Amino acid sequence: MEQVNVRWYVEDVAAHSAPVVIAGLPGVGHVGKLVVDHLVHVLSAVKVAEITSTLFPPQMYLSEDAVLRMPRNEVFFAPGSASSPGVLLLAGDCQSTTPEGHYILGNAYIRVFELLGVKRIYTLGGYGVGRMVETPQILAALSSASLKDEVLSAGAVLNKEEPVGGIIGAAGLLITLGRLAGMEGVALLGETSGYLVDPVSSTAVLDVLEKLTGITADRTELAELASQMMTEVSALASTIQRNNADDLSYIG
Amino acid sequence: MEQVNVRWYVEDVAAHSAPVVIAGLPGVGHVGKLVVDHLVHVLSAVKVAEITSTLFPPQMYLSEDAVLRMPRNEVFFAPGSASSPGVLLLAGDCQSTTPEGHYILGNAYIRVFELLGVKRIYTLGGYGVGRMVETPQILAALSSASLKDEVLSAGAVLNKEEPVGGIIGAAGLLITLGRLAGMEGVALLGETSGYLVDPVSSTAVLDVLEKLTGITADRTELAELASQMMTEVSALASTIQRNNADDLSYIG
Amino acid sequence: MEQVNVRWYVEDVAAHSAPVVIAGLPGVGHVGKLVVDHLVHVLSAVKVAEITSTLFPPQMYLSEDAVLRMPRNEVFFAPGSASSPGVLLLAGDCQSTTPEGHYILGNAYIRVFELLGVKRIYTLGGYGVGRMVETPQILAALSSASLKDEVLSAGAVLNKEEPVGGIIGAAGLLITLGRLAGMEGVALLGETSGYLVDPVSSTAVLDVLEKLTGITADRTELAELASQMMTEVSALASTIQRNNADDLSYIG
Amino acid sequence: MEQVNVRWYVEDVAAHSAPVVIAGLPGVGHVGKLVVDHLVHVLSAVKVAEITSTLFPPQMYLSEDAVLRMPRNEVFFAPGSASSPGVLLLAGDCQSTTPEGHYILGNAYIRVFELLGVKRIYTLGGYGVGRMVETPQILAALSSASLKDEVLSAGAVLNKEEPVGGIIGAAGLLITLGRLAGMEGVALLGETSGYLVDPVSSTAVLDVLEKLTGITADRTELAELASQMMTEVSALASTIQRNNADDLSYIG
Repeated sequence: MEQVNVRWYVEDVAAHSAPVVIAGLPGVGHVGKLVVDHLVHVLSAVKVAEITSTLFPPQMYLSEDAVLRMPRNEVFFAPGSASSPGVLLLAGDCQSTTPEGHYILGNAYIRVFELLGVKRIYTLGGYGVGRMVETPQILAALSSASLKDEVLSAGAVLNKEEPVGGIIGAAGLLITLGRLAGMEGVALLGETSGYLVDPVSSTAVLDVLEKLTGITADRTELAELASQMMTEVSALASTIQRNNADDLSYIG
Repeated sequence: MEQVNVRWYVEDVAAHSAPVVIAGLPGVGHVGKLVVDHLVHVLSAVKVAEITSTLFPPQMYLSEDAVLRMPRNEVFFAPGSASSPGVLLLAGDCQSTTPEGHYILGNAYIRVFELLGVKRIYTLGGYGVGRMVETPQILAALSSASLKDEVLSAGAVLNKEEPVGGIIGAAGLLITLGRLAGMEGVALLGETSGYLVDPVSSTAVLDVLEKLTGITADRTELAELASQMMTEVSALASTIQRNNADDLSYIG
Repeated sequence: MEQVNVRWYVEDVAAHSAPVVIAGLPGVGHVGKLVVDHLVHVLSAVKVAEITSTLFPPQMYLSEDAVLRMPRNEVFFAPGSASSPGVLLLAGDCQSTTPEGHYILGNAYIRVFELLGVKRIYTLGGYGVGRMVETPQILAALSSASLKDEVLSAGAVLNKEEPVGGIIGAAGLLITLGRLAGMEGVALLGETSGYLVDPVSSTAVLDVLEKLTGITADRTELAELASQMMTEVSALASTIQRNNADDLSYIG
Repeated sequence: MEQVNVRWYVEDVAAHSAPVVIAGLPGVGHVGKLVVDHLVHVLSAVKVAEITSTLFPPQMYLSEDAVLRMPRNEVFFAPGSASSPGVLLLAGDCQSTTPEGHYILGNAYIRVFELLGVKRIYTLGGYGVGRMVETPQILAALSSASLKDEVLSAGAVLNKEEPVGGIIGAAGLLITLGRLAGMEGVALLGETSGYLVDPVSSTAVLDVLEKLTGITADRTELAELASQMMTEVSALASTIQRNNADDLSYIG
């Protein structure tokens, strides 16, 4: 087993190529992962390649029937339709276990993207603000200033002061490594509390992404997750309020 | 010294080969280690190979007469008898000091297994549940769904939700790496508190393992350890109860 | 991408060479970084080379227009003037993520310095003393005892007992690695609290550096930062005193 | 700079060879380091080789006149006299920054020892017991049971249960790596509190070492350090007792 292993699942790579890839790996609020996992599902995407790595955690996952599998990231191809262009999707379980590994894995993804004809990379993620957010703002970060107008029109905001400390991990690195390989890149980061898996922020990221890519995806399931989250958060807030009231009555 | 070093202890490898290997390295509750160390002893197994590695902790052990030795994992061959088939056993001191090292060592064990004709790997371990368990459940995780009926008949349960977060370390990794080399694999994890070395859980794992492999092993010593543990735990529980009572009398 | 990547920004390396390099990377109180970033600005230095590395954190920075860039360290050339000699400057975002990486990166910087004709290295930094310092002392550490009189004349002090534990990171390592390549070296460390970014200490380091190198640099901006810091620290001290008084009145 | 760098300081290696090396690197209570640093001094040892490494901390030391130097370990040759045989000494600043580095450095030391004709390695260290010890016991750990009688006659004790967890770092590893290269080895560990640099334990280790090697070394300085330590510990104990009394009077 090499440090990074790419296994191809299709014979005809050209038939599964597309100029756009959308990457959503685990991270803050799983904002990006929720969107891309959703797209894999609703766009009936087919698996093109699987990346396993000794740089991933040595943590085996249980699939159906308790069959074990390695941690992996996967590239899918979603064929286009009348209303939606064909795109590639990078989804998966994990990121690197070491700082250096992020660069090594990032380069491996870029090599796969090159073979699949990618010209533009979208990376999706979240950035934590430490409080619940009902209408999340979407920050964009770019490979080039020439993309500025395009992302502003799609509803994202640009703010070089946020996130403080820059973007850590694949969401940022794929943009800079992609640029070295001649690819354009846009990172879209949804505002999120940082405490919870956040489908509300994911939905807001998907809004911007759809405007940018022309993809239209059924979003029933993602909307249900988001609505369910808002209900749970409200219930939690009520409970906390009631408990505080109880505490006061105790003192009184 | 290479990153992984295999030293062979037998000249005739074929005479020490077997289609089944049982691996029990240190881990949660030392559940797997207790079983395999016990089997090495009661099946009069002979040492076939020793693995040392710069990926093991730089921590030297004292043997008899205070002679120092390196941390090591060992492969033993237990010859078959009328009532028990020949098997290989992987036992030892430690696992890797780094995430990447788990993969490197895992591959090294698989290469040794290949040379010894292994077709099926059993890995034994524990999974912590945070409370004392008198009748531990044994979870199985598989290389393939085709093994499902076999492990259920032997008394194991399948539950893709447990352990939460999957299986970390050699117990899971040897199954997935083994599958890449064409081997079947079954991980058997005994329910355990996670706080103590747990021969009770080990005994329950051995029950399932014996049904699956046809091995029959004298278990006097393991049973004694288990009975001793239950006595100690009861004594501890009584002391705690008495102390709690004392505390209350103090308040009163 | 290699472990260390050097990208040259000038065609005529000889025209951008100088016998002296001044290095100020992030560290205690950002004392060294503030000085060198200031010099890059006021000496209208031009970028000669950029170092990126898989040993840097996988943390992408946002530039103007929210364009992403990799963490990087940069070598600049400040052309000489009637009153100031030409010098090279090493500035940047970060140091290594691992102990071993410090050595690997240090050697890469030295190779770049060799190509640029460097004969003497100044490294600038801070050393924390755990209390606010109004008139910081500047410690010097040397590649050779023959530099002793020169640094003492410039106002630095020599004290082999400080900093306790020696000098960690690039400020020390560039001196010892440089010596292996035949370069002289002087580390200048400004006394600082260790709690705050400290332009006051930076100004004191610049005093000594100017005497040693003959550089004269407009220091309006650095002086403003320092004066602003002293005002803020005074305000903070008053607030703390007032709060303490409040606390006492509460008790009374 | 390679991962491990050996620089030789003598031209005639044969004239600086000896069958015995005594290693005392930093560790618990600096017990081993104190002994070997003392021997380097009183036996007028000459420097034979210096080891620097990217596996050492990136922490530069200040020598006389504030000259910086890399962390290093050094091999010295102490010429024999009428009353004392010639021996080699391994002394130095540090051990590895990573578990794997311990093995890599250990092998490098063994290669140097081979070139210098070493047949037997003594490693010196301490083992912490968590309380002050006035008459420290010296534990021995061996490369072979055949050395048992020899170390017992010299006053060391053998106890395969101690230190619990075995011996971590160079003191243990040089014995097992040396054995792979055909060298005998004895680790001598002085009982020590684990809280303080402990010249009392070092003196007890030196007693055993002298009986084993036939070395006789002036020990005025080491005895002074030990006597000074006992005085300081007594003073500290009195202070603590007095403070406790004060506390009681306060309650009273």
